[in-house]
Amino acid sequence: MSETLLSSRNLAFELYEVLDAEALTQRPRFADHNRETFDAAIATARSIAEELFAPHNRKNDEHEPQYVDGTAELIPEIKPAVDAFIEAGFQNATRDFEHGGMQLPNLLSRACFAHFQSANIATSSYPMLTMGASHLIESFGDENQKRRFLQPMIDGRFFGTMALTEPHAGSSLADIRTRAEPHADGSYRIKGNKIFISAGDHPLSENIVHMVLAKLPDAPPGVKGISLFIVPKFLVNDDGSLGKRNDVTLAGLFHKMGWRGTTSTALNFGDNGECVGYLVGKPHHGLAYMFQMMNEARIGVGMGAIMLGYAGYLYSLEYARQRPQGRLPDGKDPSSPMVPIIGHTDVRRMLLTQKAYVEGAFDLGLYSARLVDDCETLATEEERKQALELLDLLTPIVKSWPSEFCLKANELAIQILGGHGYTREYPVEQYYRDNRLNPIHEGTHGIQSLDLLGRKLTQNGGAGLKQLTRLIQGTCQRAGAFSSLDALRQPLEQLMSRLQAVTLALLGDLMAGKVNQALANSALYLKVFGHAVIGWRWLEQAIRAEEGLASGNPADADFYRGKLQAARYFLTWEVPACHHDLAILETRDDTCLAMQDAWF
Amino acid sequence: MSETLLSSRNLAFELYEVLDAEALTQRPRFADHNRETFDAAIATARSIAEELFAPHNRKNDEHEPQYVDGTAELIPEIKPAVDAFIEAGFQNATRDFEHGGMQLPNLLSRACFAHFQSANIATSSYPMLTMGASHLIESFGDENQKRRFLQPMIDGRFFGTMALTEPHAGSSLADIRTRAEPHADGSYRIKGNKIFISAGDHPLSENIVHMVLAKLPDAPPGVKGISLFIVPKFLVNDDGSLGKRNDVTLAGLFHKMGWRGTTSTALNFGDNGECVGYLVGKPHHGLAYMFQMMNEARIGVGMGAIMLGYAGYLYSLEYARQRPQGRLPDGKDPSSPMVPIIGHTDVRRMLLTQKAYVEGAFDLGLYSARLVDDCETLATEEERKQALELLDLLTPIVKSWPSEFCLKANELAIQILGGHGYTREYPVEQYYRDNRLNPIHEGTHGIQSLDLLGRKLTQNGGAGLKQLTRLIQGTCQRAGAFSSLDALRQPLEQLMSRLQAVTLALLGDLMAGKVNQALANSALYLKVFGHAVIGWRWLEQAIRAEEGLASGNPADADFYRGKLQAARYFLTWEVPACHHDLAILETRDDTCLAMQDAWF
Repeated sequence: MSETLLSSRNLAFELYEVLDAEALTQRPRFADHNRETFDAAIATARSIAEELFAPHNRKNDEHEPQYVDGTAELIPEIKPAVDAFIEAGFQNATRDFEHGGMQLPNLLSRACFAHFQSANIATSSYPMLTMGASHLIESFGDENQKRRFLQPMIDGRFFGTMALTEPHAGSSLADIRTRAEPHADGSYRIKGNKIFISAGDHPLSENIVHMVLAKLPDAPPGVKGISLFIVPKFLVNDDGSLGKRNDVTLAGLFHKMGWRGTTSTALNFGDNGECVGYLVGKPHHGLAYMFQMMNEARIGVGMGAIMLGYAGYLYSLEYARQRPQGRLPDGKDPSSPMVPIIGHTDVRRMLLTQKAYVEGAFDLGLYSARLVDDCETLATEEERKQALELLDLLTPIVKSWPSEFCLKANELAIQILGGHGYTREYPVEQYYRDNRLNPIHEGTHGIQSLDLLGRKLTQNGGAGLKQLTRLIQGTCQRAGAFSSLDALRQPLEQLMSRLQAVTLALLGDLMAGKVNQALANSALYLKVFGHAVIGWRWLEQAIRAEEGLASGNPADADFYRGKLQAARYFLTWEVPACHHDLAILETRDDTCLAMQDAWF
Repeated sequence: MSETLLSSRNLAFELYEVLDAEALTQRPRFADHNRETFDAAIATARSIAEELFAPHNRKNDEHEPQYVDGTAELIPEIKPAVDAFIEAGFQNATRDFEHGGMQLPNLLSRACFAHFQSANIATSSYPMLTMGASHLIESFGDENQKRRFLQPMIDGRFFGTMALTEPHAGSSLADIRTRAEPHADGSYRIKGNKIFISAGDHPLSENIVHMVLAKLPDAPPGVKGISLFIVPKFLVNDDGSLGKRNDVTLAGLFHKMGWRGTTSTALNFGDNGECVGYLVGKPHHGLAYMFQMMNEARIGVGMGAIMLGYAGYLYSLEYARQRPQGRLPDGKDPSSPMVPIIGHTDVRRMLLTQKAYVEGAFDLGLYSARLVDDCETLATEEERKQALELLDLLTPIVKSWPSEFCLKANELAIQILGGHGYTREYPVEQYYRDNRLNPIHEGTHGIQSLDLLGRKLTQNGGAGLKQLTRLIQGTCQRAGAFSSLDALRQPLEQLMSRLQAVTLALLGDLMAGKVNQALANSALYLKVFGHAVIGWRWLEQAIRAEEGLASGNPADADFYRGKLQAARYFLTWEVPACHHDLAILETRDDTCLAMQDAWF
């Protein structure tokens, strides 16, 4: 049977040939692990994903949550799937053994989770949000909060959410209006409305722990006046038992074009003035705390986009192999048999493009996950700091690039299936709808592009950018050992040299105060930067493929040749196309900046 | 109130400034018309579209047709809308006065129909398919068939379909298996299965006339053995009254991601061996007849894609003007008021891109419609032949370019609305889903690209291509009179000169028998050719805008400046980006051709 979630061979290539996961077991934290424990975790993830997540992916789509008497009702298949996920330990995959975790590297946890995202993105959201919320309390909560709220989340009894967005403000968190009034007992009373809160209500857990951004009465204006609160659905007594219902009400559900199995809620906090919240960490530091979790959430969204792309790629590949239709242009004899459509060059183009997008992004996603491990487990503080600088720089790319290009991959999967592709009798149209959310939630492309160009490039004196440049140069140097890779390496070198010049020029403009001009075409900058990063990751994969061809099992030759062909596609078809974008950036083209509202 | 279907000002610009619709009234066929009658028809179309089509667009999506006891049930709003459309004369807009028509130019009929497509693409499909089917009988049927089937279609009592696709063959019509056996009474007995038949069953009309492709027993293999048959749902007696139910059964409905209000059916013909059909025209000429109608159908699909793009553009524009969020990069004071998001340059980029795609394609769609008028009403046969040659060449572009780029426009409309964009509480996500069908139905991109490169370029000794080249050169020459347009004209000239060289080289390869190689990257060729054509149409619009600015009403200046800015965007951001595609075509890059199945 062909694989439907991801290619195991490709995952092994990433883990053990490209990213050297085994080297992590040399670090004290992962000393009890080895390739066998890694592979066992992956096998368990695949099996639960195939048996309990994939089968209700379409049903999630067809039977979205219903608002019934103030609560959200879900299809019954979600709970056993999520329970099995928790039971198998994936909720706490990276936690210490002593806290009930598997103490796995983040890299392996991401690789395991990828199976669930591919199988059923909507159902996988419930644990993903809980993981994000629990990490927040773990990092910034006090002991009482950890005992009361975190431990039940680790135990799988409580789930979590992130409650940031408000109706009038959207991405502009500076403008949120939710208030938190101090109460005599040291807690707070929360009042405000939040929208688009994923998993904001459901019957999957005993309690739901909302991580809510709100403003204290003495808050300074803007983002520096935002604080973070724990607001549980049910209050929790000192002995850990559930207390009374908190004043949090489900105001309604949003109905999305995709990702329909995840409740998307509007929540009212404090309609009756009795909504209890608990301050996390220091007042006015809420956004900083959230930002510290942002890498995790944004890598999660990027990986989700990748896995939707991956699922569509594998489905359309199998379809193209099975479906006979038409004949090749030079063989039009109508009495000859029809060929499988993979024989048509344009279908191969659409498959190769998908492969280049999906496997290129998959490599970057896992590379970033490994950086998280480096941030936490490299030997020296200096090394850990460096890893974080690189991760911070790459995060807007990990979030946005797959959201754009793995969505394109889904578009191509539909195209390969022809008229069947857009019917709901086949799965690819759902992947496309599900994936359309990713370029928006957890920060739109526009926001990612401003984050990259206006913030990340110069963070810590540009340390992350310098590292990345050195890494890419190093890869190009190593690629130089293979003359067969010359045609792949050169386009990347040409792009990088021009991109560096453009970057310096734009940063110069920013420092000179020409802010609006320098940021006007940030979307193009994000795209080119992303293509440079993915081009780099493809050149890395190509080096490993050449090495594998030289020394490997002959049975693997086809796999490596496919890698080389996809690298060739990306580096010779896609990367050089960025030069026109660079030309626009070089001239500080003001076509969009100069467009007037009245002219539309 | 802002307009929601299309911009009336832009339509007037197209009709009276760019395409000179009034000149058509000099031709004998349209002598009874003038600008007032044109505008009256448009006003009627807009009013019916707004009042009867737009209000149930979402309901169509939410309540797709249901299969009940062998028939398809629709929501009740469709029938009054379609009835009003017919009553107002739009079903027969181009037909002779004496046959109950409005004898409008095709250009005006398309402009009117555009309103219905924008308001409700699914409901507009029922009359569109009927128009296509009725034109087939009009062109190729005998007098008896016209009396029995065409007249009731003109009267709005019968509707029609096109039944081409079969489950095993898809786009490969050479391989259809539906058979037609001659019967003693001169009719035929049809046996076979068809899928994806839009409007294949519904309760909107007394009868449904299926135009079915099938093979006679003595048919030569391949496309030269296909014949065309009329197969009514109910037989029709000599006196025009309905006879018994024909042996056509509704086997099931397809469930699509968009366009959900139009029944998409699987039909079985002759399950009981009693399906009566009537041969249209000569045996084995069916595909040629269909091809003669293909221009109409493909322009129809292209216009549908454009109008979905248009509706999304107008909605996101209005939203961007109304929705305050955040502040400009150089004005971060959190106590200052938020700006409408149209103030953000990246939002303006997304609006300007939509405008460039939508209004560029709209111009081409109407230009093609005017070419249909030229094919039918120019003074000499030679002129009419020339018009047809150009139309034939442009048809794959009119079909495919809007399907790709107005879908991209819809993607941008969603992005502008942010988290609201993908909720079903707002209309833009439906436009995106509806539009995803257009790159596939009525011939995929792959088929359009082979049609263009492998067939249309060399048709009639390349007469169409020569004409188009001359026309583009003429536009560039006229643009030369405005130094302000130099920066817009030059990229088009550069693209054209390189495209011509590539075209000659590829045609040379084709003639040398290197068929698979020459066609391997036809998708890139289609894209570049399309961008050249749209770039040309934008330069035409820019000339008119300069003329308008020079001589026009100052109140119109904003409109013309918007045109110039969109032209600038398309010609300086999009057109030059095609050079990398041309480089790939120039080198006969074999990345996709050489990719092996086993390497995936």
